[in-house]
Amino acid sequence: MRTFRLSIVLLAVLAAAAAAAADPLPSWHDRPVKAAILGWLAAVTDTTGPDHIPVPERIAVFDNDGTSWCERPGYGPTDFQVDLARSLAARGQIDPEAMPFKAWFADDRDALRAFGWNEAYVRMNAAFAGMPVEAYRDSARAWLARTVHERFGVTHDRLYYPPMLELMRLLEAHAFQVWIVSGGAQDFVRSYSEEVIGIPPERVIGSWTMPVYRRNDDGTVTMVRGDTQTYNGHEHKPANIEARIGRRPVFAAGNSNNDEPMSRYAVTGPRRGLAIWIHHDDGEREYAYGRPGRLGELCAEHPAAHEVSMDRDWVRVFADGIGR
Amino acid sequence: MRTFRLSIVLLAVLAAAAAAAADPLPSWHDRPVKAAILGWLAAVTDTTGPDHIPVPERIAVFDNDGTSWCERPGYGPTDFQVDLARSLAARGQIDPEAMPFKAWFADDRDALRAFGWNEAYVRMNAAFAGMPVEAYRDSARAWLARTVHERFGVTHDRLYYPPMLELMRLLEAHAFQVWIVSGGAQDFVRSYSEEVIGIPPERVIGSWTMPVYRRNDDGTVTMVRGDTQTYNGHEHKPANIEARIGRRPVFAAGNSNNDEPMSRYAVTGPRRGLAIWIHHDDGEREYAYGRPGRLGELCAEHPAAHEVSMDRDWVRVFADGIGR
Repeated sequence: MRTFRLSIVLLAVLAAAAAAAADPLPSWHDRPVKAAILGWLAAVTDTTGPDHIPVPERIAVFDNDGTSWCERPGYGPTDFQVDLARSLAARGQIDPEAMPFKAWFADDRDALRAFGWNEAYVRMNAAFAGMPVEAYRDSARAWLARTVHERFGVTHDRLYYPPMLELMRLLEAHAFQVWIVSGGAQDFVRSYSEEVIGIPPERVIGSWTMPVYRRNDDGTVTMVRGDTQTYNGHEHKPANIEARIGRRPVFAAGNSNNDEPMSRYAVTGPRRGLAIWIHHDDGEREYAYGRPGRLGELCAEHPAAHEVSMDRDWVRVFADGIGR
Repeated sequence: MRTFRLSIVLLAVLAAAAAAAADPLPSWHDRPVKAAILGWLAAVTDTTGPDHIPVPERIAVFDNDGTSWCERPGYGPTDFQVDLARSLAARGQIDPEAMPFKAWFADDRDALRAFGWNEAYVRMNAAFAGMPVEAYRDSARAWLARTVHERFGVTHDRLYYPPMLELMRLLEAHAFQVWIVSGGAQDFVRSYSEEVIGIPPERVIGSWTMPVYRRNDDGTVTMVRGDTQTYNGHEHKPANIEARIGRRPVFAAGNSNNDEPMSRYAVTGPRRGLAIWIHHDDGEREYAYGRPGRLGELCAEHPAAHEVSMDRDWVRVFADGIGR
C-alpha cells in the first residue's frame, strides 16, 4: 500500500517535470538564439535573482509586417487601403487619375517614390476621413477574408509565423503584456488581431488618425475617421509606446530599420531587456530580402540584441501545409 | 459521520451564499442608483440573458477630477503643473512676468480666462518640452507626497472617493477593464495611478503631449516631453478612447459637461450601457457646486444615465477620519 502510494507520488512528480521540460518553443531549433530567449526569460522571471522584472513592467512589443507575419510581396495594410480607395473611386468619391491614387492603383512604385511615400500615405488616409471607424474595420475584415496570397494560396491571416505566435504565448504565460507596434494602419490590424493572434485592439499601436466624434440627429454617437495621420515608424514607435503604454518595454521584436529605435529603447533601460531581429534569409520557405541595417548594427553593438535567422533558427516559417 | 459531512457541506454552501450576499458597494446607500448599477451589472454579466456583454467588450471609463477624487479648490494636475513651472521660473527657464505664467503664478483666473484657458494650458505644457518623461513623473510624485489639501489636511492621494474605488473594484471583479479618462495631464495621473488606485499607466488617458525619442551619446535612449498638447476633454474624450482602446465603452462615470460626449457614447451603443453623473451637492462633507448641465440633460433623456447625489447616495465621501 505504501509502495503504491509512493509510486503515485513519483508519477505525479515525473509528470510535472515532464510538463516543465516540454519544449515551450517547438518551432525554434535548439540554437543560440533560442537559448538566449529562454535564458533571459528564466532570469527576468526569477523572483530571487538580480534580473527580476516585476510583473507590471513586463511589456513586450512586436512589430507586425515582416516580424509577425509575411510582408511580401506587399504590405497587407497597404494593399487593403489601396483596395478600399479603389472602391471609393468606383463610387466617384476619389479621382483615380489624380496623384497619388493613380500611382497607388497602378502599383507604380517609382511614381510613388517621386511623389513621396509619406505624403502618398497621408493623402490616402485623408481620403477615408469621415468614414465610420466600424465601417472601415468591417471593410478590413472583408478584405482579409477574400484576399489570397499570390504565392502561398491562403488568406493572409494564415501567414502569421508560428515561431512568433509561440513566443507571444510563452511571454503571456509569464505575465507579459504583448503589444503589436506596427507602421501599418492601426485599424486594419485591430480589425482582426483579437481573433487571429489573440491580441486585443487596445494593445495594437499602428499609424493612426485621431477619430472624430459625431452626434447623430437621433442622439446616438458615431465615431468617424479623422483626416490627419500620425505615423508609427522609426523613432515614432517609441514615442507612441510612451504615449500609449507609459512604460519602457523590456522585449522588442522587429525586422527592419523601422524597428531599431524601439529595440534600442528596450535593451538600454534599467531592466535587463532583450531584442530580436528577424532576418529574412530564407528564399525557399519565404523570401530572402533582409539586410543587417540598423538592427544588425544593434546586434553587433549590444549583447542583448540577437539576430534570428529564419533559415537556421526556425523549424517552420508557416503552419504545416503552407508553402513548400 | 455522514451527518457531520453534510453539515460541513452545508456550512460551506452557507458561507458562499453569505459571501455572495455581502454588500459589494458598502459606501453606497440602498437607493435607486445603487439598485440600477447592481441590476445592470447582473444583467450584462448573465451569460444566458439578452443583455450579456462578452468579456472583451467590458470597457469602463471613469473621469478623474471631480468624479474619482476631489477637484476643489483646485485641479490637482493643474496645481502640480503650476508648481513645476514655478520651479522652472526659479531656475530662470521661464519668465515669471510673461503671460500666461504671470497669471498662473498669481492664480488670476480672470487674466487666464482673458488669455484663453486652452492657450494657457498649451503654453504651460510647451514649457515642459524636452524634460525627460521620467523626471516629470518623479516631480509629480514628489508634489503628491508633499502637498496637503487646504481644507481636509491630507495629501491628495487620500482624497479619492471610496464609493468610486469600490465601484472600480466591483467592475474589475466582473472582468471589466477600468480606464481613467481625464482632462488633466496624463503623465501626472500616471505617476501615481497604479499605486494609489490600482490603475496601470496604460489604462490612463489624459491630456497628453507626443513624447520625443532622444538617442544619447552613449547609445542609450531617453524619452522626453514633446511641445504640442492634445486635449482630452468634451468630444476629445471619445476620440481618444477610440484611438487608444478601439472599442466603445459600456460604462461611463463623469461629473461635468466635459464627460457628456463619452457618457452618451457609452449609453447609445449596441450593448446595454450605463452612465452615472456624480452630482456635487454635498457642501458639508465636500463641496456643493454641481449643476445639471449636459449630464443632467442626458439623465433626463436616457434611461441608462443616472444622477448620483453625493449627499444622498454616498455613505461616505472620503475614507473614515477625513473631513467631518
